Amino acid sequence: MFPKNAWYVACSLAEITDKPLGRTICGERLVFFRGPERQVAALEDWCPHRGAPLSLGRVIDGKLVCGYHGLEMGCDGKTIAMPGQRVRGFAPIRSIPVAEYAGFVWVWPGDPALATREQLPVLPWADNPDWAYGGGLYHIQANYQLMIDNLMDLTHETYVHSTSIGQKEIDQTPCTTRTEGDHVYTSRFMNGIEPPPFWKMALKMNDLPTDQLVDRWQVCHFAPPSHVFIEVGVALLGHGGKDAPADKKAATTVVDFITPETETTMWYFWGMARRFKPRDEGLTAQIREGQGRIFAEDQEMLELQQRNLSTYPGRKLLALNIDAGGVAARRVIDRMLAAEAAAAQAAQPAAA
Amino acid sequence: MFPKNAWYVACSLAEITDKPLGRTICGERLVFFRGPERQVAALEDWCPHRGAPLSLGRVIDGKLVCGYHGLEMGCDGKTIAMPGQRVRGFAPIRSIPVAEYAGFVWVWPGDPALATREQLPVLPWADNPDWAYGGGLYHIQANYQLMIDNLMDLTHETYVHSTSIGQKEIDQTPCTTRTEGDHVYTSRFMNGIEPPPFWKMALKMNDLPTDQLVDRWQVCHFAPPSHVFIEVGVALLGHGGKDAPADKKAATTVVDFITPETETTMWYFWGMARRFKPRDEGLTAQIREGQGRIFAEDQEMLELQQRNLSTYPGRKLLALNIDAGGVAARRVIDRMLAAEAAAAQAAQPAAA
Amino acid sequence: MFPKNAWYVACSLAEITDKPLGRTICGERLVFFRGPERQVAALEDWCPHRGAPLSLGRVIDGKLVCGYHGLEMGCDGKTIAMPGQRVRGFAPIRSIPVAEYAGFVWVWPGDPALATREQLPVLPWADNPDWAYGGGLYHIQANYQLMIDNLMDLTHETYVHSTSIGQKEIDQTPCTTRTEGDHVYTSRFMNGIEPPPFWKMALKMNDLPTDQLVDRWQVCHFAPPSHVFIEVGVALLGHGGKDAPADKKAATTVVDFITPETETTMWYFWGMARRFKPRDEGLTAQIREGQGRIFAEDQEMLELQQRNLSTYPGRKLLALNIDAGGVAARRVIDRMLAAEAAAAQAAQPAAA
Repeated sequence: MFPKNAWYVACSLAEITDKPLGRTICGERLVFFRGPERQVAALEDWCPHRGAPLSLGRVIDGKLVCGYHGLEMGCDGKTIAMPGQRVRGFAPIRSIPVAEYAGFVWVWPGDPALATREQLPVLPWADNPDWAYGGGLYHIQANYQLMIDNLMDLTHETYVHSTSIGQKEIDQTPCTTRTEGDHVYTSRFMNGIEPPPFWKMALKMNDLPTDQLVDRWQVCHFAPPSHVFIEVGVALLGHGGKDAPADKKAATTVVDFITPETETTMWYFWGMARRFKPRDEGLTAQIREGQGRIFAEDQEMLELQQRNLSTYPGRKLLALNIDAGGVAARRVIDRMLAAEAAAAQAAQPAAA
Repeated sequence: MFPKNAWYVACSLAEITDKPLGRTICGERLVFFRGPERQVAALEDWCPHRGAPLSLGRVIDGKLVCGYHGLEMGCDGKTIAMPGQRVRGFAPIRSIPVAEYAGFVWVWPGDPALATREQLPVLPWADNPDWAYGGGLYHIQANYQLMIDNLMDLTHETYVHSTSIGQKEIDQTPCTTRTEGDHVYTSRFMNGIEPPPFWKMALKMNDLPTDQLVDRWQVCHFAPPSHVFIEVGVALLGHGGKDAPADKKAATTVVDFITPETETTMWYFWGMARRFKPRDEGLTAQIREGQGRIFAEDQEMLELQQRNLSTYPGRKLLALNIDAGGVAARRVIDRMLAAEAAAAQAAQPAAA
Repeated sequence: MFPKNAWYVACSLAEITDKPLGRTICGERLVFFRGPERQVAALEDWCPHRGAPLSLGRVIDGKLVCGYHGLEMGCDGKTIAMPGQRVRGFAPIRSIPVAEYAGFVWVWPGDPALATREQLPVLPWADNPDWAYGGGLYHIQANYQLMIDNLMDLTHETYVHSTSIGQKEIDQTPCTTRTEGDHVYTSRFMNGIEPPPFWKMALKMNDLPTDQLVDRWQVCHFAPPSHVFIEVGVALLGHGGKDAPADKKAATTVVDFITPETETTMWYFWGMARRFKPRDEGLTAQIREGQGRIFAEDQEMLELQQRNLSTYPGRKLLALNIDAGGVAARRVIDRMLAAEAAAAQAAQPAAA
């Protein structure tokens, strides 16, 4: 179950090349391509002629040309032309609202009438030269909510990422969770601790000493339907932690766009946005590599957790204090699903 | 759904060696081997003793010996012997009618009483030294009718085979379709055109110039249950096209035996029969290689089309003018299925 | 269907290392590890917190620590601790009775109250320096009863293992089967025959001549729920066969522990116990290699037999004289299943 009236990341802009891109989002096979004005469009990946996947076709002058029999499809899902055929009577296929924003193509799988750009998440680093962004994409065989759980409870770092960002103080420091409307925040502040290896590297990148105690923070922010932003950092001890001046800290934002593919698989767009040395592309590559290695450590755990949950579907789980962020995020998603179900119900003709 | 009372190609004669061959045809696991007179036999691939696959066994003196416990099976499906056992009471397994013809083993999955050699398709190149034949076998993850559709509408050549046999004139030239009994013919004649790369090669093989305009033809012939023969060729412009004298044209017959394996997979025996230079085996190999490369281009399209159709089973397709051949062939198959269902119904004892 | 109130081999002792071992036994995902006294324990492979597989975790001081959030699990299935949490209210997970015996971990998937060490099979080579044991593990995609059938009817050696232990005299010599309680014995004695290659090798290992006729025996012993022990050997002709003095024979015991994984897959622990040159580890390795090669020959047959049986589930099989051992073993298993079903029925509260 996933909310449909919401923006999900479909792909990075770099994935949209001269060729169409086929990708399943929220259970639907879609095809992405650039139209006549170079704007991105998304359609059902289904040629209305014989059901061939349009993603095997070509893009010619902004038209999506089916690779089987040459049917030409417009961005609106209407057939423009087909060799030797009148196409006026062809039933259109569904055109799905898309937006280009912050280096990604966003897609709105639900009611197109409800899609507005204003509902895109606010990303300070979008089109902002003071920031740099780097990241990657993993395909994971687990329900997308398991990843939200994972990211809203960072105590797992101690165990899953013990050699990079994990440390025992995470476990020992309680976190606090608050909900504001549809947004959930879970925070943890660890003061006067030894920085773990990843953060030593980050201190060095910021030209800061690595042999001193630091104040470390983690502020996880769930934004519907399934984005998680995590402000993380370390500051030299006693300079104000998260609020320390820029020259006393190494701070960054972990960015997670989690897009359901099916009920048991997801597209996981992970990345990092930073406000230091934004033009240093070597640094961006170095961070991406390190982050990619760390985030790959979650994959096996989530996939085998999913296998367990699929095998024993009725079995109860615990919701502990550390799970408060994930549980609150699940409540938000449940509310969105209920609202969509109610709207669908209301749209039905009344029974006599 | 596939007609059962019909001849399908099971394998090439070359595939029947000293060892038995296991192959699923029309949803049934069969085993093929050579009996005591070297004639081919087909049985259920099921040892009546413990259900072991007979195809893992050996052929000794024309008996199929089970590789598990040595049960000896005859071509008629009766157990001949088994070490230390009386086998008279063993229930026979099903023996399936087969025929050797035109380099292939043919199999009749339905009622053996209805199988006659006369129902085999007429193939002019069978046992005819004036003809040469070469081909191959592809296993494709798609329903067999998608391949019939594919071959009865060659406009796809423009898109799927754009670098070899495709050219825009195919699209621009309407085709005509006619049905004669259970046979369907779709024809297209393109006059005064430039030959595409494959046909330039064929002209050269026939010692004809490649820099002249030609008349090109395509006559697709569907024969039940699922064979498609396509007369194709080019003749030097103005010599009568398909009817031009042999020294003015390059002409050949594309041969497609399409055998259902399951509802969503098929055995695709493709080949080419030609009446020029029939003894030139190097030429046969060269043509096979080129054809194999071209025909492999259809596989991904059909498999992903099948995946789309399986995902959205109720969804409507269009039947356009170019689809007339495929649609007519589907009607023939539907009639055969209806006739088989009616016969099965009639064979049931009447309810009191 | 497999009896649950019985000891099955779960793994060799060598498989239990510092890391926990996840393995599915009788349809249940289990995790094996060594507790605080180094004793082996088995639990459900399910962390009560979020359903993560405990087998991805670590063993620290005999506690199984979940690799996701650090929950510490005891051998009894009770949560000992979890960072920052009170765990007293956590529902325990199931602890499964285990025993260490004869180089293996044994597991009792059914009612723990019924498990006693006395029900372990009697293995003369367990902790006995006069014996040597070597073996291996195969994972096979077939129901475990197909392997029992296989081992209780050695006529298949003639066909499946024709180059090593097979010979035509096996087929030609009838076997006799008797049942004693829940144990089944099938015996075959072949006197005055040529030893096949494997037994020539074994004679040589025993410093006996390989160019003489021998008396060969096979005594298959099924012990519930699914163990098969086979006394096999050859003795120089006329010295008493199986009862010949040790210096006139090469004798050994084939050991087969067959553990259901699912209804259509099994863990097959094969091995050989011998009473000659027990301290010769090179010999143990040599025998293991030869046996492993021979026993791998059964795998394809059983897996394709299973595929056939799964495709045609209602289809009848024959129960011949050679199958008497397997059939008797199936009857024992059926009785055990019926007894367990009756006990489960009796445990239900009576309907009013």
